Amino acid sequence: MLSEKKEQLKRELSAALGNHPFDLILRNVRLVDVYSEQIRTASLGISGERIVAVDPPPDAPAKEIVDCNQQYALPGLIDTHVHVETTLLTPEALADVLTPWGTTTLIVDAMEIANVAGKEGLEALISDPDALSYRIYLAIPSRVPTAPGLETTGATLGVAEVAELLQLPQSASLGELDPAKILQIQDPYLEKILEALRLGRICNGHAIGLEPADLNVYATAHLADDHECVTPEELQNRLRVGMAVMIREGSSERNAKTLLDGVVAAALPTDSLMFCTDDKHVQDIAKEGHISFNVQLAVDAGMDPLKAIKMATLNGARHFHLEHEIGSLAPGRYADIVLTGDLKRIRPTRVYKSGRLVAENGSRISPYKPKAYPEHLFETVILPPGLSEQSFALKAEGDKATCRVIRLIENQIINKGERVSMPVTHGEVKADAAQDILKIAVVERYGKNGQVGLSFVRGFGLKTGAMASSVSHDHHNIVVVGTNDRDMLLACRQIESMQGGFALACEGRVMASVALPLAGLMSMKPAEAVIADMAALNRAAAEAGCRLDAPFMTLSFVSLPTVPELGLTDLGLVDVLSHQLIDEICEP
Amino acid sequence: MLSEKKEQLKRELSAALGNHPFDLILRNVRLVDVYSEQIRTASLGISGERIVAVDPPPDAPAKEIVDCNQQYALPGLIDTHVHVETTLLTPEALADVLTPWGTTTLIVDAMEIANVAGKEGLEALISDPDALSYRIYLAIPSRVPTAPGLETTGATLGVAEVAELLQLPQSASLGELDPAKILQIQDPYLEKILEALRLGRICNGHAIGLEPADLNVYATAHLADDHECVTPEELQNRLRVGMAVMIREGSSERNAKTLLDGVVAAALPTDSLMFCTDDKHVQDIAKEGHISFNVQLAVDAGMDPLKAIKMATLNGARHFHLEHEIGSLAPGRYADIVLTGDLKRIRPTRVYKSGRLVAENGSRISPYKPKAYPEHLFETVILPPGLSEQSFALKAEGDKATCRVIRLIENQIINKGERVSMPVTHGEVKADAAQDILKIAVVERYGKNGQVGLSFVRGFGLKTGAMASSVSHDHHNIVVVGTNDRDMLLACRQIESMQGGFALACEGRVMASVALPLAGLMSMKPAEAVIADMAALNRAAAEAGCRLDAPFMTLSFVSLPTVPELGLTDLGLVDVLSHQLIDEICEP
Repeated sequence: MLSEKKEQLKRELSAALGNHPFDLILRNVRLVDVYSEQIRTASLGISGERIVAVDPPPDAPAKEIVDCNQQYALPGLIDTHVHVETTLLTPEALADVLTPWGTTTLIVDAMEIANVAGKEGLEALISDPDALSYRIYLAIPSRVPTAPGLETTGATLGVAEVAELLQLPQSASLGELDPAKILQIQDPYLEKILEALRLGRICNGHAIGLEPADLNVYATAHLADDHECVTPEELQNRLRVGMAVMIREGSSERNAKTLLDGVVAAALPTDSLMFCTDDKHVQDIAKEGHISFNVQLAVDAGMDPLKAIKMATLNGARHFHLEHEIGSLAPGRYADIVLTGDLKRIRPTRVYKSGRLVAENGSRISPYKPKAYPEHLFETVILPPGLSEQSFALKAEGDKATCRVIRLIENQIINKGERVSMPVTHGEVKADAAQDILKIAVVERYGKNGQVGLSFVRGFGLKTGAMASSVSHDHHNIVVVGTNDRDMLLACRQIESMQGGFALACEGRVMASVALPLAGLMSMKPAEAVIADMAALNRAAAEAGCRLDAPFMTLSFVSLPTVPELGLTDLGLVDVLSHQLIDEICEP
Repeated sequence: MLSEKKEQLKRELSAALGNHPFDLILRNVRLVDVYSEQIRTASLGISGERIVAVDPPPDAPAKEIVDCNQQYALPGLIDTHVHVETTLLTPEALADVLTPWGTTTLIVDAMEIANVAGKEGLEALISDPDALSYRIYLAIPSRVPTAPGLETTGATLGVAEVAELLQLPQSASLGELDPAKILQIQDPYLEKILEALRLGRICNGHAIGLEPADLNVYATAHLADDHECVTPEELQNRLRVGMAVMIREGSSERNAKTLLDGVVAAALPTDSLMFCTDDKHVQDIAKEGHISFNVQLAVDAGMDPLKAIKMATLNGARHFHLEHEIGSLAPGRYADIVLTGDLKRIRPTRVYKSGRLVAENGSRISPYKPKAYPEHLFETVILPPGLSEQSFALKAEGDKATCRVIRLIENQIINKGERVSMPVTHGEVKADAAQDILKIAVVERYGKNGQVGLSFVRGFGLKTGAMASSVSHDHHNIVVVGTNDRDMLLACRQIESMQGGFALACEGRVMASVALPLAGLMSMKPAEAVIADMAALNRAAAEAGCRLDAPFMTLSFVSLPTVPELGLTDLGLVDVLSHQLIDEICEP
């Protein structure tokens, strides 16, 4: 390994010295130099996978010379925090949408597949990296399960497994750790943190809703960043405890404009700021862009495009100790290069990864080819043996019951816990679609204990039917929301038959569904097929009354037991801040 | 080790949570926040060695509460590249001068003691770190010897030893690698680089005199910084290949003003800039300051004090992947804190290391106590058995000879190679003090082969006598410059009798000397004694006609075989750029 790297380095040095031809020269670019913060006409010499010369001699020989006609050349963009599985695509298929937008590096916290299939699932996801048109570094999942004792997952990652994974060459950090583990001083998480630091890795935070007093505790534990800021004040509070901020623009979490306006208004320094998507649906990526969209929002907020691009490149590379590999167009770095005619609206004309052309004018060079994954990753949905309509019955006594209701907050991942008085009929509280109070259930899907957690949710707006998903953060049991128990059951059965996915059932019929058979999280289809399938599914959900833009993304997050105020797992309703199971029906 | 760290972390978290009292609270400081780039009134809560809260609750209990009366609190200053041995003091004694100026971290490339005594010498230097009033991280010496085949050293560090040292918890980087090794693609150095990168360490450069074409090669090899810039153009050229720049202000190398003027004039970003001293004599530190002086020069050049302090703190911490430990006053970081009434002229009123008060109003709290070093580190000077006046005779034929002369350049480490026609008398070329052409010799001092290298040097200005030093970069043989061979021999003998040091001999008498018995590099005396001894020695040198400000610092660098144009070792005269031994007398 080391000797192979040495031979590569020797070839690169030899090319840099002019001892043999470059593989590629990009001539006549307007180079976006994130170190000098200057844009100047230059050329780039590439050998193998790396840039080895800025402004090589004008007569230097090369296997290929491209005149770039004064297009801007910028470093490949970096998504500093993303759960690749939530795009619903395999990394291979995701490339079709991602690469044309100039994103060449993802820092992937693959906690989703890890919760379903553990270390093996995780390793399957990153096998054969050279076949990809972007590079993946791993944020090693720190919490599998996310809420031990409060949820059932397909697999767990203990301290020893995390320590082992942190040593992978692709490992860049310990993945996002939620504050409860720190505020409660839980040993295994401190051990994971110290092991990461010992290995020179940073520790990613997830400081959702944290106020300064708790941020002190969190930063004391060496959590180095946060991607959960929603207000400029939160952003400032994180900088003040020495945390970097990943400004997120996902499908549900659209935080970038507010945060960037705040950064510009307060004239904050940007060296501790970077960009991420966290969770962004593939149709949104295809429509508006990826990290390129975060850059666009920054420029729209009044930021110097060079600073915005630096946030999308060098700042993230530095933060993850990857400055020698990515984040700039300097010698020694991978030749991950984006050519574009416009810095303010990045529309790449060419994208290179490791010196190889991977996209041109909005399209990938090589179309998607499915990769072989281990068989058992396609067999992960095992419903409770006796699952029936009765499994969704929410029992209560008397005439009325004060029920807890998870109320969605538009465009945000957090929710509010409400108490609503509801009638009890035949010993049961039913959903009340007229008031937009739907039943929500989480059904254990790993064949482990067959538990079903039940509660109510407000905000989906469904007038009829039920929608279910095997994507259900972070435990990825089946979450189902519905106006009636029969359709809830049917939607679950449809997911079982697909071995994962999304389904909408109305009045006894499956109206639409999308199969996600890889770990119950990802499709094996190409991006455009999934986009079309999702569009049809979302149309069907709208027809059933759902008012949300991305109803299945919202569905997949609504039960998350680590995002305040309420979560729901197969074990029941979770009060997130106290990290405890609570009754779905309040004491009278 | 991990379990001890975990218990510490738990105590820190517990204090941050308010579960037990802080050890120290600094109230009412003007906090220099290098993340937000803001200065605001705040307080800091400290538990054990670390900051655990910014603005703890006003009524939070603490073992000690200090009202800081609106003094500025800034992070302890970082010297990003220093050879601690060239201060002539042990790290323990150096603390007396360093600490009062607010420097709390040194990134030490201890290549000097490594050249004399190898891994063992290096480890002796950093033993008992808690007793020090500042912290040391190691840049693991990459080139021991610096010029293999061109010099004799006391020890060598091969690839395996370097790899082992890189794994020390204190290791922060692979130490400065000179360009020749890269431009000549020498395998062992590439192996050291790749091993450092594999372990998450950066690689320090030493890009002296490199032009853009060679910088491309150098940066391709992942050399991440340079501390040898002397012009703003050089600084810009390094940024353009993605290298950070350490702006140096040493005793001989006074580069800061020129570089900082250039940075301000070109409005360059400062996030890739940091400060170092490299080699600074203790009397200069005592007189003008340490990294505080670099900050002062930056402010004088027109830089925002906050940016200047960020260069002296966070930027370096980030560059070396130490952001979680040092460089800011944020939770989780060591409580290395400087209190001062003035940001533009930093005169610390209090300095804390790890939450412990280590200096107050210009003085250390605990006076210097010598540490025990292994016996054999005091027995490192073994002169060639037959050393005599004749050993210094420079033989030539005919009446005249064209001799090479090393011409010093004022205030710089580089020199020029001149050719001067000199008379030959009785088959010898003698020094010519009238023309300021002195003889220079390097005498092997490890008892290995007894070689003596000879040449001429111009710029010392000595009218009589000879000056010798066992500090002689990087091989640390004895370098001696003189007007006559007898005094040269006497000066060498004086060094032998002291087992290391500096000596001035005139007309058969030792006029002054300073003993440096630890590895022939360092005194065991306290700082003020060494300052007084050095002052007396320098006065004596001035009386002998020497015109230099720091004659023995210059003497110790003049023979360096890696700084252009000429070097001299025990094996002879070295043409630095071609990395070859050349004749001291040119072909007729």
